[in-house]
Amino acid sequence: MSEERNQQVENLWQEVRELSLGTTSQVEHLDSPPSPLQFLRNYVNPNKPCIISNAIHHWGAFTSWTNDDHLTQTLSQTLVSLHLTPNGFADSLTPLPSSSSLCFASAHVERLPFPQALKQITSTSEENEGVPSIVAYAQEQNDCFRSEYSALSEDVECDIPWASEALGVLPDAVNLWIGNQHSQTSFHKDHYENLYAVVTGEKHFLLLPPTDYHRLYIQSYPAAQYILDKDTGEFTLELEKPLRYVPWCSVNPYPHSAAKAQEMSRFPLYFNGPKPFECTVKAGEILYLPSMWFHHVRQIPDSKGRTISINYWYDMQYDMKYAYFNFLQSIRFQPSLDPTPLIKQNKD
Amino acid sequence: MSEERNQQVENLWQEVRELSLGTTSQVEHLDSPPSPLQFLRNYVNPNKPCIISNAIHHWGAFTSWTNDDHLTQTLSQTLVSLHLTPNGFADSLTPLPSSSSLCFASAHVERLPFPQALKQITSTSEENEGVPSIVAYAQEQNDCFRSEYSALSEDVECDIPWASEALGVLPDAVNLWIGNQHSQTSFHKDHYENLYAVVTGEKHFLLLPPTDYHRLYIQSYPAAQYILDKDTGEFTLELEKPLRYVPWCSVNPYPHSAAKAQEMSRFPLYFNGPKPFECTVKAGEILYLPSMWFHHVRQIPDSKGRTISINYWYDMQYDMKYAYFNFLQSIRFQPSLDPTPLIKQNKD
Repeated sequence: MSEERNQQVENLWQEVRELSLGTTSQVEHLDSPPSPLQFLRNYVNPNKPCIISNAIHHWGAFTSWTNDDHLTQTLSQTLVSLHLTPNGFADSLTPLPSSSSLCFASAHVERLPFPQALKQITSTSEENEGVPSIVAYAQEQNDCFRSEYSALSEDVECDIPWASEALGVLPDAVNLWIGNQHSQTSFHKDHYENLYAVVTGEKHFLLLPPTDYHRLYIQSYPAAQYILDKDTGEFTLELEKPLRYVPWCSVNPYPHSAAKAQEMSRFPLYFNGPKPFECTVKAGEILYLPSMWFHHVRQIPDSKGRTISINYWYDMQYDMKYAYFNFLQSIRFQPSLDPTPLIKQNKD
Repeated sequence: MSEERNQQVENLWQEVRELSLGTTSQVEHLDSPPSPLQFLRNYVNPNKPCIISNAIHHWGAFTSWTNDDHLTQTLSQTLVSLHLTPNGFADSLTPLPSSSSLCFASAHVERLPFPQALKQITSTSEENEGVPSIVAYAQEQNDCFRSEYSALSEDVECDIPWASEALGVLPDAVNLWIGNQHSQTSFHKDHYENLYAVVTGEKHFLLLPPTDYHRLYIQSYPAAQYILDKDTGEFTLELEKPLRYVPWCSVNPYPHSAAKAQEMSRFPLYFNGPKPFECTVKAGEILYLPSMWFHHVRQIPDSKGRTISINYWYDMQYDMKYAYFNFLQSIRFQPSLDPTPLIKQNKD
């Protein structure tokens, strides 16, 4: 019975790819922005990602943000929030000190003038074997572009016009992201239609549709916070008090080679199931990241050591797809002793 | 365990109503046609029905089909397909003669000149207690308006412009329906986006979303055909040879009072679950009937004894919603011994 139900869930993973998303790991590519109707009909409705080229070449930012001068002059006096971690993994699962159990670790956040913040991001000191001791990432979110970075508002559009017309609303939030090659964002999903524009550098995404819910092994983890000691430059990790639990994806898609075999046996539905969709979003391109899609993000910096992106969050529709997702989520996947069908499926 | 799964399915029925469709049995009403973007965003994407008023008043048919002259003159020589049954139930479940088991009965189809066909539809002889012995219904489907009735093409639009623009395609099929108060269509679903325009008379619809799949008790029934003996005017019902099985909804929403208690105990998920959406589409209105919705149709004739409609079938998108539907369909609902939770849900 449970085996039968597992097979039904695995069929769903496969069928949504065969019907709509495609059976390769590629994301559809458009050479220019779609019309609002095309965007709504071909991507938003089917909840299907796409990459749009030549999407932001008319932005001032596309040229003026490629070197630091314009940014540091415009924001010379502006205080911004900088997220600091020992390893570049903010909002991700980390072992608790003096225990093997995992917590959901948030970065140490510092407010400082933008020029200093940018310096810390681009000049991350590479210590023992290229592993830095402090990784800085400007990733405040919370609509930060329209608050902390409002001085830059002239450099970009306040929305993505064809998306706003398609969705019939303006963005709920606009966020700026400035990071380097050490920062990663672990697998998670957002309840927004997301238009993710890369201004300089590159972003690399792993994507899984909402139907693959069971493959991420979402569990609740206690929330913890990194605290940086200014004098020693050492981080400590402290559990929030009172304890707060955060449901988060358990899967790290890039385990260290030493841990790989163990991770693969812990999370067979991810590692043996259909390949995730994978794409690299280059400067000047926009990724449409559909609501409820699980995504993991890495970045490749430009020649100045920075990846700068802006993303627009639009309200999603809580409709039949969402009700179906909650139904899927309510169905328990029984751990299978025999991964063979999954491996077979992976070959399809 | 099965009880738990039943509850998960019942939650889906409820949640799709609370999130998107509405918890009353009413269908949303628009005073004029929506823009293509509004139609796509607010109705097609969420797979949500609506009725559009003032939708076809510019059609010649809206005035010229209200009396028989124009129709009988334009089609004076045209052979059309007329569907004949003893009771007005074509394509519906009927007991097999000399057996209590049900079959899927199709009408006896006769090709005759349109003026005679119209006469048979409007002059159904009312025998014992208003129950006619022969019910005629012009319901050939198969794109019949563009084939059998092409002489009328000037009287209507060849598509619904705002729907064609929204969906990015032209209709796959356009069908004409001419019937009277005795004809009913039993619960079923179509794999099309359906725009259903009533020209004269009224159509009454019961609607259930695809998420209510288990409530229709779909089973396979042997296909049978009515044969009319011209001399005696008697129908016989013959099983197709070789046997062919048709999956069809088992629920009759309007059982005779004598059979009602039995039907309610056979189909508790239908009769004790959330009320179906219900609407009457008047002359000049269009019903958007979303793909995969289960629908049951009755009609109220105009003063000349006819209900005339045209429906446009557009390709549906086989996307994530469709994959979710197949997943839901694959999950068995365990007959519950205790209907209480359903009755409770009905009160919500």
